[in-house]
Amino acid sequence: MISTATEQDGQPIQSITANTSVFTLEEVDCVAELWEEYRQHGAEISGYYFVVESLDGHVRGFACYGPRSLTEGTYDLFWIAVDPEYRRAGVGRKLLNWVEKDIHRMGGRLIVVETSGLEKYAPTRHFYLATGYLLEATLKDFYKEGDDLVIFTKHL
Amino acid sequence: MISTATEQDGQPIQSITANTSVFTLEEVDCVAELWEEYRQHGAEISGYYFVVESLDGHVRGFACYGPRSLTEGTYDLFWIAVDPEYRRAGVGRKLLNWVEKDIHRMGGRLIVVETSGLEKYAPTRHFYLATGYLLEATLKDFYKEGDDLVIFTKHL
Repeated sequence: MISTATEQDGQPIQSITANTSVFTLEEVDCVAELWEEYRQHGAEISGYYFVVESLDGHVRGFACYGPRSLTEGTYDLFWIAVDPEYRRAGVGRKLLNWVEKDIHRMGGRLIVVETSGLEKYAPTRHFYLATGYLLEATLKDFYKEGDDLVIFTKHL
Repeated sequence: MISTATEQDGQPIQSITANTSVFTLEEVDCVAELWEEYRQHGAEISGYYFVVESLDGHVRGFACYGPRSLTEGTYDLFWIAVDPEYRRAGVGRKLLNWVEKDIHRMGGRLIVVETSGLEKYAPTRHFYLATGYLLEATLKDFYKEGDDLVIFTKHL
Protein backbone atom coordinates (compact mmCIF):
# COMPACT_ATOMS: atom_id res chain seq x y z
CA MET A 1 0.00 0.00 0.00
CA ILE A 2 1.23 3.44 -0.86
CA SER A 3 0.33 6.45 1.21
CA THR A 4 1.40 9.97 2.03
CA ALA A 5 4.05 9.81 4.73
CA THR A 6 3.04 10.78 8.26
CA GLU A 7 4.94 11.49 11.48
CA GLN A 8 5.57 7.85 12.37
CA ASP A 9 7.14 7.11 8.98
CA GLY A 10 10.11 9.35 9.81
CA GLN A 11 12.00 6.65 11.67
CA PRO A 12 11.63 3.91 9.00
CA ILE A 13 12.59 6.44 6.29
CA GLN A 14 15.78 7.27 8.19
CA SER A 15 16.52 3.57 8.66
CA ILE A 16 16.07 2.81 5.00
CA THR A 17 18.41 5.62 3.92
CA ALA A 18 20.97 4.49 6.50
CA ASN A 19 20.74 0.82 5.44
CA THR A 20 20.77 1.46 1.71
CA SER A 21 24.45 1.27 0.89
CA VAL A 22 24.26 3.78 -1.93
CA PHE A 23 23.51 6.84 0.19
CA THR A 24 26.50 8.88 1.34
CA LEU A 25 26.48 10.46 4.80
CA GLU A 26 25.69 13.85 3.22
CA GLU A 27 22.74 12.33 1.43
CA VAL A 28 21.45 10.69 4.60
CA ASP A 29 21.62 14.14 6.22
CA CYS A 30 19.91 15.66 3.22
CA VAL A 31 17.00 13.21 3.42
CA ALA A 32 16.69 14.03 7.14
CA GLU A 33 16.68 17.75 6.37
CA LEU A 34 14.00 17.48 3.68
CA TRP A 35 11.95 15.21 5.95
CA GLU A 36 12.09 17.84 8.72
CA GLU A 37 10.87 20.50 6.28
CA TYR A 38 8.05 18.21 5.15
CA ARG A 39 7.11 17.21 8.70
CA GLN A 40 7.03 20.78 9.98
CA HIS A 41 5.47 22.59 7.04
CA GLY A 42 3.74 19.94 4.93
CA ALA A 43 4.32 19.09 1.28
CA GLU A 44 2.86 22.19 -0.35
CA ILE A 45 4.80 24.74 1.68
CA SER A 46 8.06 22.79 1.94
CA GLY A 47 7.90 21.66 -1.69
CA TYR A 48 8.93 18.13 -0.64
CA TYR A 49 6.46 15.30 -1.06
CA PHE A 50 7.13 12.06 0.83
CA VAL A 51 5.24 8.83 0.21
CA VAL A 52 5.82 5.40 1.70
CA GLU A 53 5.08 1.88 0.54
CA SER A 54 4.13 -0.43 3.37
CA LEU A 55 2.96 -3.99 3.90
CA ASP A 56 1.16 -4.98 7.10
CA GLY A 57 2.17 -1.65 8.63
CA HIS A 58 5.84 -2.15 7.83
CA VAL A 59 7.45 0.55 5.64
CA ARG A 60 9.40 -1.11 2.81
CA GLY A 61 10.32 1.92 0.75
CA PHE A 62 9.75 5.61 0.21
CA ALA A 63 9.91 8.28 -2.45
CA CYS A 64 10.57 12.00 -2.23
CA TYR A 65 9.77 14.46 -5.01
CA GLY A 66 8.70 18.05 -5.56
CA PRO A 67 8.26 20.89 -8.03
CA ARG A 68 11.42 22.49 -9.42
CA SER A 69 11.43 26.20 -8.69
CA LEU A 70 11.29 28.63 -11.63
CA THR A 71 9.56 26.02 -13.78
CA GLU A 72 5.97 25.38 -14.79
CA GLY A 73 5.16 21.71 -14.41
CA THR A 74 8.64 20.24 -13.92
CA TYR A 75 9.19 17.99 -10.93
CA ASP A 76 12.34 16.57 -9.38
CA LEU A 77 12.21 12.98 -8.25
CA PHE A 78 14.84 13.18 -5.50
CA TRP A 79 14.87 9.62 -4.26
CA ILE A 80 13.18 6.28 -4.42
CA ALA A 81 14.69 3.98 -1.81
CA VAL A 82 13.73 0.47 -0.85
CA ASP A 83 14.72 -1.47 2.28
CA PRO A 84 17.42 -3.92 1.10
CA GLU A 85 15.41 -6.75 2.71
CA TYR A 86 12.58 -6.14 0.27
CA ARG A 87 14.46 -5.76 -2.98
CA ARG A 88 13.07 -7.35 -6.15
CA ALA A 89 9.53 -7.26 -4.78
CA GLY A 90 8.45 -4.49 -7.15
CA VAL A 91 8.35 -1.88 -4.38
CA GLY A 92 10.42 0.61 -6.40
CA ARG A 93 8.19 0.30 -9.44
CA LYS A 94 5.04 0.66 -7.36
CA LEU A 95 6.43 3.82 -5.81
CA LEU A 96 7.53 5.21 -9.18
CA ASN A 97 4.15 4.51 -10.68
CA TRP A 98 2.43 6.29 -7.81
CA VAL A 99 4.79 9.27 -7.98
CA GLU A 100 4.25 9.69 -11.72
CA LYS A 101 0.47 9.63 -11.29
CA ASP A 102 0.64 12.11 -8.41
CA ILE A 103 2.88 14.50 -10.36
CA HIS A 104 0.54 14.25 -13.34
CA ARG A 105 -2.45 14.91 -11.07
CA MET A 106 -0.73 18.11 -9.83
CA GLY A 107 -0.26 19.31 -13.40
CA GLY A 108 3.32 18.11 -13.83
CA ARG A 109 4.55 17.56 -17.38
CA LEU A 110 8.16 16.58 -16.90
CA ILE A 111 10.05 14.53 -14.30
CA VAL A 112 13.77 14.98 -13.81
CA VAL A 113 15.93 12.41 -12.01
CA GLU A 114 19.51 13.20 -11.12
CA THR A 115 21.72 10.31 -10.09
CA SER A 116 25.34 9.27 -9.98
CA GLY A 117 27.44 7.59 -12.65
CA LEU A 118 29.26 5.44 -10.07
CA GLU A 119 29.23 1.69 -10.55
CA LYS A 120 27.18 1.18 -7.38
CA TYR A 121 24.37 3.22 -8.95
CA ALA A 122 24.18 0.96 -12.02
CA PRO A 123 20.99 -0.72 -10.71
CA THR A 124 19.46 2.73 -10.16
CA ARG A 125 20.29 3.83 -13.72
CA HIS A 126 18.99 0.53 -15.07
CA PHE A 127 15.76 1.00 -13.11
CA TYR A 128 15.06 4.37 -14.75
CA LEU A 129 15.99 3.18 -18.24
CA ALA A 130 13.73 0.16 -17.77
CA THR A 131 10.80 2.35 -16.71
CA GLY A 132 10.83 4.66 -19.72
CA TYR A 133 13.21 7.41 -18.64
CA LEU A 134 15.52 9.02 -21.17
CA LEU A 135 19.21 9.47 -20.37
CA GLU A 136 19.59 13.16 -21.18
CA ALA A 137 23.09 14.01 -20.05
CA THR A 138 26.18 12.94 -18.16
CA LEU A 139 28.15 15.72 -16.47
CA LYS A 140 31.64 14.42 -15.87
CA ASP A 141 33.09 14.72 -12.36
CA PHE A 142 30.03 16.62 -11.14
CA TYR A 143 29.70 15.16 -7.63
CA LYS A 144 33.44 14.79 -7.28
CA GLU A 145 36.37 13.59 -9.40
CA GLY A 146 35.30 10.31 -10.98
CA ASP A 147 31.67 10.69 -9.89
CA ASP A 148 29.50 11.95 -12.75
CA LEU A 149 26.01 13.38 -12.66
CA VAL A 150 23.55 11.43 -14.82
CA ILE A 151 20.28 13.15 -15.72
CA PHE A 152 17.16 11.24 -16.74
CA THR A 153 13.85 12.71 -17.82
CA LYS A 154 10.35 11.51 -18.55
CA HIS A 155 7.69 13.59 -20.26
CA LEU A 156 4.27 12.66 -18.89
CA MET B 1 36.44 47.47 -10.54
CA ILE B 2 35.07 44.23 -9.16
CA SER B 3 34.29 43.77 -5.50
CA THR B 4 32.27 41.69 -3.08
CA ALA B 5 28.77 43.16 -2.91
CA THR B 6 27.85 45.15 0.18
CA GLU B 7 24.58 46.50 1.60
CA GLN B 8 24.37 49.53 -0.72
CA ASP B 9 24.70 47.34 -3.84
CA GLY B 10 21.30 45.78 -3.16
CA GLN B 11 19.37 48.55 -4.87
CA PRO B 12 21.47 48.64 -8.09
CA ILE B 13 21.36 44.83 -8.28
CA GLN B 14 17.56 44.93 -8.10
CA SER B 15 17.44 47.67 -10.75
CA ILE B 16 19.66 45.71 -13.10
CA THR B 17 17.55 42.56 -12.82
CA ALA B 18 14.38 44.62 -13.34
CA ASN B 19 15.83 46.46 -16.37
CA THR B 20 17.36 43.41 -18.00
CA SER B 21 14.59 42.24 -20.28
CA VAL B 22 15.52 38.57 -20.02
CA PHE B 23 14.56 38.08 -16.37
CA THR B 24 11.04 36.89 -15.68
CA LEU B 25 9.16 38.21 -12.65
CA GLU B 26 9.88 34.93 -10.81
CA GLU B 27 13.57 35.32 -11.53
CA VAL B 28 13.59 38.92 -10.31
CA ASP B 29 11.99 37.65 -7.09
CA CYS B 30 14.53 34.85 -6.92
CA VAL B 31 17.46 37.27 -7.19
CA ALA B 32 15.87 39.34 -4.40
CA GLU B 33 15.46 36.24 -2.25
CA LEU B 34 19.07 35.10 -2.70
CA TRP B 35 20.28 38.65 -2.10
CA GLU B 36 18.36 38.75 1.21
CA GLU B 37 20.00 35.48 2.28
CA TYR B 38 23.41 36.84 1.33
CA ARG B 39 22.83 40.19 3.05
CA GLN B 40 21.56 38.63 6.28
CA HIS B 41 23.89 35.65 6.61
CA GLY B 42 26.89 36.35 4.38
CA ALA B 43 28.22 34.30 1.50
CA GLU B 44 29.61 31.33 3.39
CA ILE B 45 26.49 30.57 5.42
CA SER B 46 23.93 31.44 2.73
CA GLY B 47 25.95 29.73 -0.01
CA TYR B 48 25.31 32.68 -2.35
CA TYR B 49 28.21 34.84 -3.42
CA PHE B 50 27.44 38.26 -4.92
CA VAL B 51 30.01 40.45 -6.63
CA VAL B 52 29.53 43.74 -8.47
CA GLU B 53 31.42 45.51 -11.21
CA SER B 54 31.41 49.27 -10.81
CA LEU B 55 32.90 52.32 -12.47
CA ASP B 56 33.20 55.60 -10.54
CA GLY B 57 30.98 54.17 -7.84
CA HIS B 58 28.24 53.18 -10.30
CA VAL B 59 27.29 49.48 -10.38
CA ARG B 60 27.24 48.28 -13.99
CA GLY B 61 26.77 44.57 -13.46
CA PHE B 62 26.76 41.76 -10.94
CA ALA B 63 27.29 38.03 -10.64
CA CYS B 64 25.85 35.47 -8.24
CA TYR B 65 27.32 32.00 -7.71
CA GLY B 66 27.76 29.37 -5.04
CA PRO B 67 28.70 25.78 -4.24
CA ARG B 68 26.28 23.05 -5.34
CA SER B 69 25.17 21.00 -2.36
CA LEU B 70 26.12 17.32 -2.25
CA THR B 71 29.15 17.96 -4.48
CA GLU B 72 32.85 18.45 -3.84
CA GLY B 73 34.13 21.41 -5.83
CA THR B 74 31.17 22.05 -8.15
CA TYR B 75 29.79 25.58 -8.29
CA ASP B 76 26.65 26.99 -9.85
CA LEU B 77 26.97 30.28 -11.65
CA PHE B 78 23.41 31.52 -11.17
CA TRP B 79 23.53 34.84 -12.97
CA ILE B 80 25.74 37.38 -14.60
CA ALA B 81 23.72 40.47 -15.44
CA VAL B 82 24.84 43.76 -16.91
CA ASP B 83 22.96 47.05 -16.96
CA PRO B 84 21.63 47.40 -20.56
CA GLU B 85 23.23 50.88 -20.73
CA TYR B 86 26.66 49.34 -20.35
CA ARG B 87 26.44 46.44 -22.77
CA ARG B 88 29.41 45.61 -24.99
CA ALA B 89 31.84 47.21 -22.56
CA GLY B 90 33.29 43.87 -21.46
CA VAL B 91 31.58 44.01 -18.06
CA GLY B 92 30.20 40.47 -18.38
CA ARG B 93 33.57 39.03 -19.30
CA LYS B 94 35.29 40.85 -16.44
CA LEU B 95 32.74 39.46 -14.02
CA LEU B 96 33.02 35.95 -15.44
CA ASN B 97 36.80 36.07 -15.22
CA TRP B 98 36.62 37.20 -11.60
CA VAL B 99 34.05 34.54 -10.71
CA GLU B 100 36.14 31.76 -12.25
CA LYS B 101 39.21 32.86 -10.32
CA ASP B 102 37.27 33.11 -7.09
CA ILE B 103 35.73 29.66 -7.53
CA HIS B 104 39.16 28.25 -8.30
CA ARG B 105 40.59 29.97 -5.21
CA MET B 106 37.88 28.28 -3.08
CA GLY B 107 38.84 24.87 -4.47
CA GLY B 108 36.18 24.68 -7.16
CA ARG B 109 36.82 22.33 -10.09
CA LEU B 110 33.68 22.61 -12.14
CA ILE B 111 31.28 25.46 -12.97
CA VAL B 112 27.74 24.73 -14.07
CA VAL B 113 25.57 27.31 -15.83
CA GLU B 114 21.90 26.66 -16.42
CA THR B 115 20.11 28.92 -18.85
CA SER B 116 17.13 28.98 -21.17
CA GLY B 117 16.87 27.86 -24.77
CA LEU B 118 14.55 30.78 -25.65
CA GLU B 119 15.55 33.04 -28.52
CA LYS B 120 16.01 36.00 -26.17
CA TYR B 121 18.72 34.06 -24.34
CA ALA B 122 20.74 33.52 -27.54
CA PRO B 123 23.27 36.24 -26.52
CA THR B 124 23.66 34.55 -23.12
CA ARG B 125 24.31 31.16 -24.73
CA HIS B 126 26.73 32.75 -27.18
CA PHE B 127 28.55 34.45 -24.29
CA TYR B 128 29.22 31.13 -22.54
CA LEU B 129 30.23 29.34 -25.73
CA ALA B 130 32.60 32.21 -26.55
CA THR B 131 34.20 32.02 -23.11
CA GLY B 132 35.08 28.34 -23.20
CA TYR B 133 31.97 26.71 -21.77
CA LEU B 134 30.79 23.38 -23.11
CA LEU B 135 27.14 22.86 -24.03
CA GLU B 136 26.42 19.67 -22.07
CA ALA B 137 22.70 19.17 -22.46
CA THR B 138 19.38 20.58 -23.56
CA LEU B 139 16.34 19.44 -21.58
CA LYS B 140 13.31 20.05 -23.75
CA ASP B 141 10.39 21.99 -22.23
CA PHE B 142 12.10 22.15 -18.84
CA TYR B 143 11.09 25.67 -17.75
CA LYS B 144 7.76 25.40 -19.52
CA GLU B 145 6.42 24.18 -22.85
CA GLY B 146 8.74 25.56 -25.52
CA ASP B 147 11.32 26.79 -23.01
CA ASP B 148 14.24 24.37 -22.76
CA LEU B 149 16.95 24.16 -20.10
CA VAL B 150 20.44 24.49 -21.55
CA ILE B 151 23.35 23.34 -19.36
CA PHE B 152 26.90 24.58 -19.86
CA THR B 153 29.96 23.49 -17.90
CA LYS B 154 33.57 24.52 -17.59
CA HIS B 155 36.24 22.44 -15.87
CA LEU B 156 38.75 24.73 -14.19
